[in-house]
Amino acid sequence: MPREEFQFIDRIRAKVVDRPPVVLGIGDDAAILQLDANRETLVAADMLIDGVHFRLDEIEPELAGRKALAVNLSDIAAMGGEPQAAFVTVALPRARGMMFADRVMGGLLDLADEFGVVVAGGDTNVVDGPFVISVTVTGQSWRRRAVRRSGAQPGDWLLASGEFGGSLAGRHLTFTPRVQLMQSILDRADVHAAIDVSDGLAADLHHILKASGVGAVVEAESIPMSQAARLRAASSTTDTASLWEEPLGRALSDGEDFELLLAVDPDAGARLIADRTLTAPLTRIGQFTQHRGCQLRFADGRETALPAIGWTHQFRSP
Amino acid sequence: MPREEFQFIDRIRAKVVDRPPVVLGIGDDAAILQLDANRETLVAADMLIDGVHFRLDEIEPELAGRKALAVNLSDIAAMGGEPQAAFVTVALPRARGMMFADRVMGGLLDLADEFGVVVAGGDTNVVDGPFVISVTVTGQSWRRRAVRRSGAQPGDWLLASGEFGGSLAGRHLTFTPRVQLMQSILDRADVHAAIDVSDGLAADLHHILKASGVGAVVEAESIPMSQAARLRAASSTTDTASLWEEPLGRALSDGEDFELLLAVDPDAGARLIADRTLTAPLTRIGQFTQHRGCQLRFADGRETALPAIGWTHQFRSP
Repeated sequence: MPREEFQFIDRIRAKVVDRPPVVLGIGDDAAILQLDANRETLVAADMLIDGVHFRLDEIEPELAGRKALAVNLSDIAAMGGEPQAAFVTVALPRARGMMFADRVMGGLLDLADEFGVVVAGGDTNVVDGPFVISVTVTGQSWRRRAVRRSGAQPGDWLLASGEFGGSLAGRHLTFTPRVQLMQSILDRADVHAAIDVSDGLAADLHHILKASGVGAVVEAESIPMSQAARLRAASSTTDTASLWEEPLGRALSDGEDFELLLAVDPDAGARLIADRTLTAPLTRIGQFTQHRGCQLRFADGRETALPAIGWTHQFRSP
Repeated sequence: MPREEFQFIDRIRAKVVDRPPVVLGIGDDAAILQLDANRETLVAADMLIDGVHFRLDEIEPELAGRKALAVNLSDIAAMGGEPQAAFVTVALPRARGMMFADRVMGGLLDLADEFGVVVAGGDTNVVDGPFVISVTVTGQSWRRRAVRRSGAQPGDWLLASGEFGGSLAGRHLTFTPRVQLMQSILDRADVHAAIDVSDGLAADLHHILKASGVGAVVEAESIPMSQAARLRAASSTTDTASLWEEPLGRALSDGEDFELLLAVDPDAGARLIADRTLTAPLTRIGQFTQHRGCQLRFADGRETALPAIGWTHQFRSP
């Protein structure tokens, strides 16, 4: 997300005072409301736009609808939640007609079915402009409390699900939101903090660090890199090849991986990594530290600062 | 709303099966979720677009933000609810800059404050296209159960709040969502069914009739007509003046009045109309009947069928 937009959100946040039933408002993957004594209610909202988050001329309309729901399911997953209902508003380009609308909703409804989510409301408009779809998903915490970004402790292991990098090659449209994985993890261990990787591994890790008031060391060689990240890096035509055009850089900064970053204590971390019953592999990619800041450490001992690089920098020139 | 869009929503609705915690999904002013044994949770979502719901070249940006929240507060009001949290996604036209965004949000945040609503999340995008804002509001029922469209009984009085017609002259941007009014009414009486008038008095009344499986007779002379409806009708330049270009027609069909239509038993109706402590006047404009269909009755005894005329027909040629 461009800096200008972050600043805009910060200005809104400065004007808003959370009050019951809102326990946690702007600033995490989803808001937390306390409506029920036994579970927290979660609400996530995202808007996707043709030409920004996908290009309708290049993809099936079903994938646009699917992604609009999936990104929100990923947010609910990162909060340790169970998604339950979705609310869908759309601006349908006049020229594309109602068949297009049916196909978009078909893709969305199929994913909703898969995750037991009820499409419970929304709004339809026809416009002279690009296709816009905004989805709000509500759910409840799987355990009594949802998982915030703010609970990472010094000494906690930094775990990641799946693989990173190159999602624009297709995975950003077809990824599986890690809802079931997170629920299985919470059945087995406490998770101190979590986030889903949308802006990029490094950028989203920084969100945890800032919210938790801790630092981290990331082990460069441990980051699971996708085949797409390798291919993408290999095909790079830039002369001034930097770290960020190599597979590692791709994995750290491409974004839209929709994998989970988790902070768990080392015992839990070791158990989770060894657990073959989970629906996706977990990898230890680093550790949280008392010392603020974020370091990238290589096997040969070299260390470099790992800034909050992400989607902003990469998307416009992929 | 154009017929094509209604059919699109009907196709979605046909594919969705409500299941817990969703008690009532698509088809009312807001969805109802049962998350708490003592109150029902309400969720409403609406998308507004420059050139469709307002024209940014003619209004202050604050009014666009205000309206985007207000239409959802009106939906929560019609369900007999207390709005609590709002989730705001926006597509900001690149050319308008961030000052524009701040002003839109300023108008929205002011109204949120006024109604005790927390802006608890959202999403920001910059686009090459028209301004789009989508707001989802969550809340809880004021009493144990929310008020549906479906509870109107034969013999119930049809009450309306405020005045109708000509809202495009300005009121569609500045109206007061009837949240407090509805809560006061619910403190004094049972409401069998309610809806807020967005499509138009006649069209929205038909929604109650269909959901409740009843008919209605509307007393033409009892409908409170706004000054704007009278002016608008007077300035009509059409040669072939029909009922729908007279003030009464405006009041019945203009839409975006965001007033409430209520079904209450006659005793409660008489008490409510006489109550001077309510924040807006209520008027008896008709009665629900066992006989299906909707009739418009004039003081001289004439009767005519009142079809579901509304926004669809009027907005494009105001």
